[in-house]
Amino acid sequence: MKSNRLIAAAAAGMAFTAAPAYAVDAETAYILNTFSFLVNGALVMFMAAGFAMLEAGLVRSKNTATICLKNIAIYAIAGIMFYILGYNLMYMDVTGYIGSVMPWSADDAAALAETGANFEAGYSASSDWFFQMVFVATAASIVSGTVAERIKLWPFLIFTTVLTAVIYPIQGSWTWGGGWLSEMGFADFAGSSIVHSVGGWAALTGALILGARKGKYGANGSVHPIPGANLPLATLGTFILWLGWFGFNGGSVLALGSAGDAISMANVFANTNMAAAGGVVSAMILTQVIYKKVDLSMALNGAIAGLVSITAGPDTPTLGSAILIGMVGGAIIVFAVPLLDKLKIDDVVGAIPAHLMCGIWGTMAVPLTNADASFVTQFIGVAGIGAFVIVASTIVWLALKFTIGIRADEEDEAAGLDKAELGLEAYPEFGRGAHSI
Amino acid sequence: MKSNRLIAAAAAGMAFTAAPAYAVDAETAYILNTFSFLVNGALVMFMAAGFAMLEAGLVRSKNTATICLKNIAIYAIAGIMFYILGYNLMYMDVTGYIGSVMPWSADDAAALAETGANFEAGYSASSDWFFQMVFVATAASIVSGTVAERIKLWPFLIFTTVLTAVIYPIQGSWTWGGGWLSEMGFADFAGSSIVHSVGGWAALTGALILGARKGKYGANGSVHPIPGANLPLATLGTFILWLGWFGFNGGSVLALGSAGDAISMANVFANTNMAAAGGVVSAMILTQVIYKKVDLSMALNGAIAGLVSITAGPDTPTLGSAILIGMVGGAIIVFAVPLLDKLKIDDVVGAIPAHLMCGIWGTMAVPLTNADASFVTQFIGVAGIGAFVIVASTIVWLALKFTIGIRADEEDEAAGLDKAELGLEAYPEFGRGAHSI
Amino acid sequence: MKSNRLIAAAAAGMAFTAAPAYAVDAETAYILNTFSFLVNGALVMFMAAGFAMLEAGLVRSKNTATICLKNIAIYAIAGIMFYILGYNLMYMDVTGYIGSVMPWSADDAAALAETGANFEAGYSASSDWFFQMVFVATAASIVSGTVAERIKLWPFLIFTTVLTAVIYPIQGSWTWGGGWLSEMGFADFAGSSIVHSVGGWAALTGALILGARKGKYGANGSVHPIPGANLPLATLGTFILWLGWFGFNGGSVLALGSAGDAISMANVFANTNMAAAGGVVSAMILTQVIYKKVDLSMALNGAIAGLVSITAGPDTPTLGSAILIGMVGGAIIVFAVPLLDKLKIDDVVGAIPAHLMCGIWGTMAVPLTNADASFVTQFIGVAGIGAFVIVASTIVWLALKFTIGIRADEEDEAAGLDKAELGLEAYPEFGRGAHSI
Repeated sequence: MKSNRLIAAAAAGMAFTAAPAYAVDAETAYILNTFSFLVNGALVMFMAAGFAMLEAGLVRSKNTATICLKNIAIYAIAGIMFYILGYNLMYMDVTGYIGSVMPWSADDAAALAETGANFEAGYSASSDWFFQMVFVATAASIVSGTVAERIKLWPFLIFTTVLTAVIYPIQGSWTWGGGWLSEMGFADFAGSSIVHSVGGWAALTGALILGARKGKYGANGSVHPIPGANLPLATLGTFILWLGWFGFNGGSVLALGSAGDAISMANVFANTNMAAAGGVVSAMILTQVIYKKVDLSMALNGAIAGLVSITAGPDTPTLGSAILIGMVGGAIIVFAVPLLDKLKIDDVVGAIPAHLMCGIWGTMAVPLTNADASFVTQFIGVAGIGAFVIVASTIVWLALKFTIGIRADEEDEAAGLDKAELGLEAYPEFGRGAHSI
Repeated sequence: MKSNRLIAAAAAGMAFTAAPAYAVDAETAYILNTFSFLVNGALVMFMAAGFAMLEAGLVRSKNTATICLKNIAIYAIAGIMFYILGYNLMYMDVTGYIGSVMPWSADDAAALAETGANFEAGYSASSDWFFQMVFVATAASIVSGTVAERIKLWPFLIFTTVLTAVIYPIQGSWTWGGGWLSEMGFADFAGSSIVHSVGGWAALTGALILGARKGKYGANGSVHPIPGANLPLATLGTFILWLGWFGFNGGSVLALGSAGDAISMANVFANTNMAAAGGVVSAMILTQVIYKKVDLSMALNGAIAGLVSITAGPDTPTLGSAILIGMVGGAIIVFAVPLLDKLKIDDVVGAIPAHLMCGIWGTMAVPLTNADASFVTQFIGVAGIGAFVIVASTIVWLALKFTIGIRADEEDEAAGLDKAELGLEAYPEFGRGAHSI
Repeated sequence: MKSNRLIAAAAAGMAFTAAPAYAVDAETAYILNTFSFLVNGALVMFMAAGFAMLEAGLVRSKNTATICLKNIAIYAIAGIMFYILGYNLMYMDVTGYIGSVMPWSADDAAALAETGANFEAGYSASSDWFFQMVFVATAASIVSGTVAERIKLWPFLIFTTVLTAVIYPIQGSWTWGGGWLSEMGFADFAGSSIVHSVGGWAALTGALILGARKGKYGANGSVHPIPGANLPLATLGTFILWLGWFGFNGGSVLALGSAGDAISMANVFANTNMAAAGGVVSAMILTQVIYKKVDLSMALNGAIAGLVSITAGPDTPTLGSAILIGMVGGAIIVFAVPLLDKLKIDDVVGAIPAHLMCGIWGTMAVPLTNADASFVTQFIGVAGIGAFVIVASTIVWLALKFTIGIRADEEDEAAGLDKAELGLEAYPEFGRGAHSI
């Protein structure tokens, strides 16, 4: 049973504490490793709710039901596609051939149980599968926020399908599947690049190909802010993401069978928290200084920015370094959001600054606190993943654009996607759309 | 100390992995078993928030505060009644006599600690109690959604009291308390029938005796849809339920003291997730095909349908089978919701299709993947539980109807229960009720 | 490595089960202790979302975005200040000198790992740090609800900074840092006094110095109720707090390395739940009896009241006693809320009754079920903490008042803080403020 990031990490000679002989007996370690995947994986699953609420709060009320639908659909599709294709595609270098791990056959469970019961494997195969699966959905969730309010539902879901079944797993295999980036020593602990920048690149190509929402950018370079309809929901979404991130980063220790694993997971939890805190504080201070007002959505994105920034290396920094890494992330938000507007790239929820730019920053920052990582290798990883996802996403977006179309009709966009796509309203009794354009 | 599903399961000869001698030392196993009950139980507790948000999102704004109150009251009452009566009623066949486990006496804690410290028991008695208690509330939560918007508050709470103190525990004792269904080999891993169909039957009898909301059904067979006021909240509720279900099904392994337990729990987590994903996708595709629009509330109920469907047997299917079991659940939603409207059974949130019909489907589907289960026994379980709950619920509903009354006055229903029952509004500043009838 | 409540508790001779030689091997115990801190700590972190939603639901829509911002800022600032100063201030009696545990130095991680790997310590230092840190934010969150809708943003955040960096840690050191209250045998298991009454006292002094919202109290002693804008959010917040409280109290066992720890944690989970249930039920019954209507916000605050009440001693009561302790808490809410209005103390969310009064009640109730605690010592603890926090908070509030000012301008208060402080609206499309004053 060799089928996950753990093996890839060990093969790459990374500082990883689970491999050595257990003082803890093998079965206890097996249970703890498995339970860690399940508990942390459940927290990551809940991030789907976080994205849903963040995006539902930041779009206008006329597009809210559609974004809710997309988010639950993304999570469902991501799991199914990862089952049908993605998991094997991602780990085939490790497992030898496609189809070895999760074949659609009747004796799956028996095989699984048997394989799992080999304590040398260290954890239940299903628990590993569950944990990897919840990561796929995260990458896809990032896209929906950026392209919201003007993309047609089914083309978006088709893009999600390809992203989760093919694009994410292929680049994921390069590092976590034991591929060439892993062999080079590319360090991306929980996926600043592998998860967040992938979602970010796909979002960026989507935003460019799709174009901005009607009315967002004036002819003379003016920018018309389009406020989100429900900021408490966006706040809730951010807190849920923050909570889920403990599982995202903490679970990426990939083991809990030794004191070293436990120490590593504890450091990861603490650093993850402090980076997010740093992101909030720097975004607040900078918006106060620059705009003379604190901006709630900047503060929320500051938290996410801090979280993405620490994700590539949450195990090695001190708490103080983690705060600083997060603060830089928060600053990226404050400067990048207006920059995107200047470039007329319409990113509804600010996912490109938070997930793409901070993903790159976080990946490049790893060597600052981790002697095993090098700037050159980190750059190769960032660029390689970026080049692949840009090309692959662009092909898919363009293929969709020139076949079934991706952009909602002008009238549908004006009326709102909820009416056009779903035939209903998210808030039928109190949404009036007075401030919408 | 013999007082829970674990004993009943072992007695029934079910494929259960905790009983054999531990390679893991007894105390470690004891800790892990206990901690599993607590962590998974906390997730189940959070389902109360999921039901509250789902129902708050799917009722009209004029009834929203009342449904919020009902949901927190249900959870509180369920716990207290399970303490006063339910737990002992449910497990008296196992424990020998009523009152043995949780007597209201001063030396409870000492007794508990002592009993618990007997490692042979395998887990802390309080942790088992906590885990069983959170299940009771779930059954009661199902009812509130169906009968919302026209039932009086206190009669509903009295029904909840009887349901959680008497009806649920009695039928629960048949299987999880070591009773006749257990002896027959009835297989209902986490309660598709024992929890969900029980709530569903009680909801169905309530809906029939209470009648539909004013204006829902026209004289000529027309159906007037009454949209929910806040779909993002309903979406959030669904995600919370999905999260909580990992605890609901995963914790129902009832142990974490061996590698076999861990493997079982991991399989359960993964299958639970995939059934929900299948339910979402099938509900989306079917509504698109049939109605040419995707329906958000159908997709949300599709997730719940998948979750209920897998609950009777989340340990034995392959991932692929779990997806298919969930997809059938999603299809049940799409076809049953209009069917209920044809029968003029007014189910505000769609709980009868999701919890009752999918509960039956899930229970009957167990033998498809579990050789130890038989269709005949499953049918006897479904029918036996159904007959009992229908009769018992009907008696309670009718007794309430002919004494204090259950239906709100016509004016109160028109004005909204929030004003009538609570004297306030859920959204005083922006709820206008323009679309309400 | 001697740096937390655990040591203080052991030193004080409290009934604590982790210290004795493990039957569980030392490394397994180390992992379990650490994992308990992380899982329970993550639940406590999520309480920040609970406070945010509770407060966002109970203020008017024109102040909703500001309260959201405050809540995420509080959590971020609390963590950073606890890192910079608070943790060392709180545990310096234990650790010997300030700066020993979390110095801002490059070899922190190495030192931590090494220290942590000493199994005698029993748990990873980072996990303990994480768990203590999330408690600080809770104390600060309590204040924001009381002083909402009329306090200026930055002065409030400065108060938060001082509270989390200095005031909370100093009084915390008296008990959990091994100080004089610990030596006297003051029993406050998870912080009814140390966390909740501290927040409550700071809130009370703030409310008194700040004054009531315009329009809340008429000249002739009349009270004008100001309803919250979004009660489902307040309900959600309460459920999230309830969930988080399992971590708050359960994690405060501070260990999971023996069967005794597991039993203690299970008792704590069950009692915590039942006290909250008792609070809900008593608040509902009392409001029905007194006002002839059930009040949703009273029921929600009843849950919180029950939770605060049990927090000082959730390990010793029976389930029945826990229900009664919570019921008294619920009653305190029902009687104290109108009392505060009579005194013209404007507490927007009811935090003073819930956290301060029930915190005192819970602390004084410990000797009822715990023979090791004495009423005199409990009273000294309550009074000592109260005196210190009243004086310290008053100094800080007054210093802020007479320098930069704490009260928003009258026009800003009328227009809402969201416009004044953030320049935006929380619900731009449907908030009309028709009912606001």
